[in-house]
Parts: sequence; structure tokens; C-alpha cells
Amino acid sequence: MSHLTILKSLNYFFNPRSVAVIGASGTPGKIGYTIFNNLIKGYFRGRVYPVNPSRATILGKTCYKSISEVPEQVDLAIIAVKADIVPEVLLECEREGVKAAIIISAGFKEIGEDGRKREEKISEIVKRGKIRVLGPNCIGVFDNSSGLSTLFFPDTRMEKPKPGHISFVSQSGVMLAMFLDWAAKENIGIAKAVNLGNRVDVDESDFILYLTFDEETKVILLYLEGLEEGKGRKFIEACKFAAFHKPIIAVKGGKTESGSKAVLSHTGSLAGNYNIYKAAFKQANVIEAKDFQEMIDMAKALVILPLMTGNRVAVITNAGGAGVMATDALESKGFKIIEIDEKTQSKLKESLPAAASTKNPIDMTGDATAEHYRIVMNTVANLDYIDALLVCIGFHPPTIGFEVLDYVYYTKEFGKPIVSVVMGGALAERLSRIMENNQIPAYPTPERAATALYALYEYSKIKQSYLKI
Amino acid sequence: MSHLTILKSLNYFFNPRSVAVIGASGTPGKIGYTIFNNLIKGYFRGRVYPVNPSRATILGKTCYKSISEVPEQVDLAIIAVKADIVPEVLLECEREGVKAAIIISAGFKEIGEDGRKREEKISEIVKRGKIRVLGPNCIGVFDNSSGLSTLFFPDTRMEKPKPGHISFVSQSGVMLAMFLDWAAKENIGIAKAVNLGNRVDVDESDFILYLTFDEETKVILLYLEGLEEGKGRKFIEACKFAAFHKPIIAVKGGKTESGSKAVLSHTGSLAGNYNIYKAAFKQANVIEAKDFQEMIDMAKALVILPLMTGNRVAVITNAGGAGVMATDALESKGFKIIEIDEKTQSKLKESLPAAASTKNPIDMTGDATAEHYRIVMNTVANLDYIDALLVCIGFHPPTIGFEVLDYVYYTKEFGKPIVSVVMGGALAERLSRIMENNQIPAYPTPERAATALYALYEYSKIKQSYLKI
Repeated sequence: MSHLTILKSLNYFFNPRSVAVIGASGTPGKIGYTIFNNLIKGYFRGRVYPVNPSRATILGKTCYKSISEVPEQVDLAIIAVKADIVPEVLLECEREGVKAAIIISAGFKEIGEDGRKREEKISEIVKRGKIRVLGPNCIGVFDNSSGLSTLFFPDTRMEKPKPGHISFVSQSGVMLAMFLDWAAKENIGIAKAVNLGNRVDVDESDFILYLTFDEETKVILLYLEGLEEGKGRKFIEACKFAAFHKPIIAVKGGKTESGSKAVLSHTGSLAGNYNIYKAAFKQANVIEAKDFQEMIDMAKALVILPLMTGNRVAVITNAGGAGVMATDALESKGFKIIEIDEKTQSKLKESLPAAASTKNPIDMTGDATAEHYRIVMNTVANLDYIDALLVCIGFHPPTIGFEVLDYVYYTKEFGKPIVSVVMGGALAERLSRIMENNQIPAYPTPERAATALYALYEYSKIKQSYLKI
Repeated sequence: MSHLTILKSLNYFFNPRSVAVIGASGTPGKIGYTIFNNLIKGYFRGRVYPVNPSRATILGKTCYKSISEVPEQVDLAIIAVKADIVPEVLLECEREGVKAAIIISAGFKEIGEDGRKREEKISEIVKRGKIRVLGPNCIGVFDNSSGLSTLFFPDTRMEKPKPGHISFVSQSGVMLAMFLDWAAKENIGIAKAVNLGNRVDVDESDFILYLTFDEETKVILLYLEGLEEGKGRKFIEACKFAAFHKPIIAVKGGKTESGSKAVLSHTGSLAGNYNIYKAAFKQANVIEAKDFQEMIDMAKALVILPLMTGNRVAVITNAGGAGVMATDALESKGFKIIEIDEKTQSKLKESLPAAASTKNPIDMTGDATAEHYRIVMNTVANLDYIDALLVCIGFHPPTIGFEVLDYVYYTKEFGKPIVSVVMGGALAERLSRIMENNQIPAYPTPERAATALYALYEYSKIKQSYLKI
């Protein structure tokens, strides 16, 4: 299938003009209730039809006995009925010309032999190529542009993240919900998210290609437990294509022997040998994160920062210990902490507190003022042998004014990536938020900021590798 | 010096009956103002005297021209005057029988030759053994029992943590302030904290011994950039003695070449070869954390959980992906994820959702209820081949009731360590707090919970090693 065909066929999962919820319900707590209710009360702008043979209306809307009764051509069917009638319902959708279906229902290959047979019936329909299917056994999609969401978690349990540029493809459903809820709390913007389920048709590679063409998406995240047999080549090709356009960050589940067994119980996938996945990620230009926290830390930086042209970082701080830790973390990740040239050091010393160290890290000591930061950042951002700035700020000493936030913001004008470390408690959290609202990634520890820069440099090298002759 | 002599002489730093602030000031923003103001307006119950030759009263209190004029014997002098008069002031303190002095003032060996000479004068006084000295160039002490604090950061910049059982010895001052502020936000209880400064007299080993005898302290944390020459043996002996009584967790600053250079600029210490420190920590029964986040994650668990008698962990979850990640993290840290025996599995299957997996991880799926958790936790906590429980809870599905918090709490009665993972956003954060208020450490990712269990198991082995014949 060509990229443009995939793009078009998958678009029905995110931007349908009309949606039928098959198995819609008027009973609060039921999945078919939450999905239908979220669609009509949420931000989705398309038309939504409830389908349920035993009801005349649901939440005030006319209910249809079957998809064939819905008065218009339906783009997307969301299927949340008992597993044993899913094949029949899907067949009807195919017959009615529905373009795509999300099968929320569980009870397929993940429960054993009976389920496997049921899933084969779906596979047969899929093979005819008339309707594209996401699932079964999934929580579906979340799209912050179209407003479409099939997530069936109550709003009292889960907050929705603000619109943004990070998209997430996840082999785990509950982890996806947790991720979105976490993003909401952390004020991180999300474009699209999708949970794969049993992958009877569309898989991670399809969505990675789709997101490559999605203008809202600037970074693609992936939680992967295992590829299906024979899908390795497709995955590598999709990622290699996508990674030219935007970074892909993956977390692999099932790295250890016991973890692989857990994967088999969880999604019925073969987790495979972790070293093979590591090699595949490398070949596919996918950046690996060790866990979700690292994945978010990296994504926050990649979504807003310019690329790094080299690996030389200047560390600027008013807390010596933070400077030491940042230096350790950066050097152990392959960065160079080059000593600032003598001439520049002499110039800096003229303005800084007597006990300041100007080598690199530039430790202005606890007596530093916002003006000291301004002078140092402006000077260092101008040095041609410095590729990025890691700026640690401790707001505890009374000397450091909050206008340092403005100065960090102005320093962006020099075009070099800047990450900030704001350590401390409630005040630090608040000031970090202000930083991030102004496109400066902020982290609570030097190590996490160093990890973010690492991902940025990795992606910078990936991007360059495409352009080499 | 015997342990009891150290205990007694260092007690003046934390529990003085009377304190003189030499260099007290009435000018807001000045260090001598903040320290004096904090002492008289804070929780400190001892008597406080301002000393400043140019003032008659400060903040409504009679001010004394010198320490000799103070109308009672002073236990502790807090010295915040210009560096060049510090030796003279300290000499006067010695003469007047002051037991201990905290020299806040900077301008000693950290600024070069002039400072070094000044510091030697202090060393000479110290050598006579009449007065113990903390610093110079430090932020001093924080004690949540006596209420004594010499921290000179305004309350508007830094919140104070609640009283608790974690104590911190730090070679970095601003990092200590950040740590306390962070602990306050995270609702982590702190007993005592001390910043070492230039270590002209008392050092990390002295405070580690002191904290060994401190009844409030249950876990000792250490941020160390480098030991002074010839202090290795003393350090190892102090830690070995302390670690029998309570765990010590250390973060080393200056692990890399550039990090070592940064250490030299920061505290003037030699960071030394990291491998030698790693070996020393091991020999000294010190658990190493890679950064401050890991240090806090470990401390939270060590301060409340019973020791582990073996390395076999049961993972309980309603989110398959979290179970996979917990299993990976645990196995890679040396834990065993043993399959639950067939008989127990059959018994569990009777009560759990059909799609649940009962091997280990026990994944009850997103349909799990609080009652499912209760049954599984009670069953597993009773198994003699399980040494600890890692319980992941996703609160997004509507099926899971909040009474699961009670059930986790009741499961503690089985006497096995339990750590919890509560993933998600604002709701997860709130519920984690409730967990921790009830003595169950809670983490936002499975990896961080696994790190906490790792520290617990390491300390369990350390503790046992003392009792082997």
C-alpha cells in the first residue's frame, strides 16, 4: 500500500465525518455509555449515531437498530458489543460501506482458543480490504484536533491533556490512559494517541506512517511489547521513513526473561530477544527511552528545541552541586564540557561574584543575581564552540530575581537549544511551568535535563544521517 | 574520640540551650537578619542573643557588642561576619567557653591563597580542642526537633519539610536547601540536615556517627563530592558502625573527568577516582543512589518498610503494561519473579475476571475491582515464597473503587514490605499522598518502585551481614 493510501484509509480513525457507536448504552458505568456520552458531550464536531437494537433513544438521541438503519453513510464504527456478535456486526459494517471500525470489545485471541477462532472471522473480513479495523481488545483513539475520543474512562478518573504536538502509539491501553492523564497534570500538549489492541489489521507501523503526515504531530512516542511475526521489515521501513520527518521515541516492554513472559500473558505477543529490538531500533532511527518518565522528558525537549549541531554543552548554575551533577550526567552521556576560553573567562569575572567559577560549569554561586545570569547566558550563547546550554536555577537565595525567567527566554534568540533545571519544591514547580509555557523545557534534576539533551543530540545525528551523501 | 564524646560535642550544633548570632542584623535581606529573624520567630525553643557592636537592639531584642557581654554561657555561636574578622571572633568564642560555632561566612580556602591563610588561623583554634566548628562557608544546620535552623533563605523562597525520620548530610549548601524544599512539597518528613562547608573541623563521618545515635533519624542521606586526604579510613569506619543501626544512602558528585574538575571549582575537594569511591561505599555498607530522585525514592521506602527476607517479589496490577515494566525493572535489579503455584492460581482464577493472568505478574486487567485486589493481596502476602509485594493501581477504569487504599493498608498486617505504583495525573498524585500518609511508599512509575525495593533488599543484606558468624 502506498503512503498516501495508508494516510487516507487511516484518516477515518481520527477525522471521521460521521460515527456510529454500536453497542451504545444509556446506563452510566457501561462502556457503551461512556463512549457515546463522551462523543456527544465532548469536543467532537462530526455526527454521532447510537446503534442498539433494544433502545429507541439514548441520551435524547434517536437510536438505530443496526448500522444499516443509520440515515447516512458512516465513516467510522465504534464497536462495543459482546465478543461473540462482533464478527456479525463487522460484516454488516463492511456491507454498509463503513470505512473503518474500532473494535473496543475484548474476548479474542487474548483469552485463548475460543477467542482465537472468533478473531479469525474478523481477519477474513479484513483481508477483503474494504474496511480497516483497529483492535479488537483496545481503548481506541484520542485526537485533540478533531475532538474524537473512544476512551471509556470517566472524566472524574482522568483529565484530558491540552492540544499539542506529541503523539503516542501504545500497545497497552491502560498505560495510554495513564500517560494522557499524566500529560494533563504536567501541562504537556498531546496531538493524537492510539492503542493498538490485538492488531488484526492496522498496527504500529501504519500509525507511525500516518503520524508522519500529521501536521500537528512533531514527536512520535511508542510503547511496544513485541512486533507480530514477519512485521520486522515493515516496522523498520516505516520508522526510517518517519524519522526523517520527526523523532520517534520508543519504550520496549519485556526486556528481561520474566518481562517477556509477562508480555505473553498481557498482549499475547512474543516480546522477542531484547538485543534484537535494540538493534532494530538503532537501524530504524528510533531513539530508545528506558521508561515512561524518560520518554516524556525527551519528548518535551524534542518538540520545541532546535537541533544540536555538536555535542558541546555549557552548564550555568548558581548551585555548585547542581553544576557538578549536570556535568557528570552530560559527560556520561557522551557530551563534552569544554572549558570556556581564557579571554571570555576574564570578561565574565569582571561582572560575577568573586567566588564564581567561570570554567564550565559556570557556577555563579548562591550570590548570583538575574543580571549575572543574563550576562553569562548572552556571552556563552554567542560562543561558536558551545552547542547547547543547560541552565540550573535555584530560587532559594534572595538575590536571584524572578526576571531571570525573562532572560532565559530572550536567550532563545541565539538559536541554540536551552534546557533548564529548576530544583526545589512548590515554587520551583510553579516556575518550571512558566518556563515550559515559554518553550523552555524544565526539569527537576540535572540528570533528567541531560537525558533530554541526549535525545535531542541523538535525533540531530539521525536527521543529519539522511542528508549525507 | 569515643562515640559518646562525639555525640556530646556535636549535640551543641543541634540542641544548644543558648545561641548567639554574631553578625545579627536588622536589615531585611542580609544573612545576619534572616538567620536571627528565623531563630526568634521560628520554632527554636532555646535562648537567642544578637551580637553586633554597632546596634543597641535588633528586632526588639537587646543587642550585645561582643560574645563576652552576653549575660549567660553560650552553647552555640552562629558566625555571619566578614571573613577577615572571623578568626578573631572565633578566638573570643573559645575564650568565653562557647562549645560550638557554625561559621556561615565565606571567603576562606574556596577563594584561594588569602582565604587559605585565614582558614589556617581557624584550624589552629580548632586544634586546641576547646570549641567545635562547622564550616566555614556553609549554610549550617536544620533540626526539626529542636527547631534550630541557620538556613538563611527567606520563607517566601523555601518551604520547610514536616518532622520525620530522614536526615541529610550534604557537601553542597544550595542542594541541601533544594532538597528540604523538595521534601516539603513531596510531604516527606525530615529529622535533621547539615551542610559541611570547608570542613575545618567536623566532617561527614562525625555527623554520620552523631546521627547513628539520633533517635529521630532512621535513614541517613549523604551528598559527597570528595573526602579530604587521609579521611578514608575514618569515613569507612563511621559508616560501617552506622549502617548496622540504620541505612546510609549516598550520592557521589564528580564521577566523571569533567565532573571532578567541577568539584574542584565548587568545594575545592578532590573528587578522586569514582571506582575507588564505589569500592569504599561497598566496603562501608553505604548504598549508592545515582541521583537525588533515586535517593529520595529509596529513603521513602527504607524509613517505613520492614526488611526483606529474600528477593522474590509478586507484582499485582490492573494494567498489563505496568506489570510488564515492573517485572523488567525488578528482574534487571536481581529480583526473582517466581510463578505462583498452580493450586493458588486455580483458587485465584475462581474470583478474578476471565481474562486475568495469575502467574506473576498477577494482571487482573482493567476490569479489576477493589475486592479483586483484596483477594489477591491477601492470598499472595500469605505465600511463604513471596518476600515483597509491588502493587500497581490504575484508577482510570470506573470498576476500581477507592477502598482499594484500605485494602493495601490492611495487607501490611502480613508483615511483608509493600510498595505501590499509582500512575496517572492529578488523581494519582492525590491518592499516592494518601498511601504515603498511611505508610505505604507510592511511586509514579514501576521503575522507581523497583529501585526502592532494591535499596530495601540491599540494606536487608547489609543488616544480615553483621549478624553472620
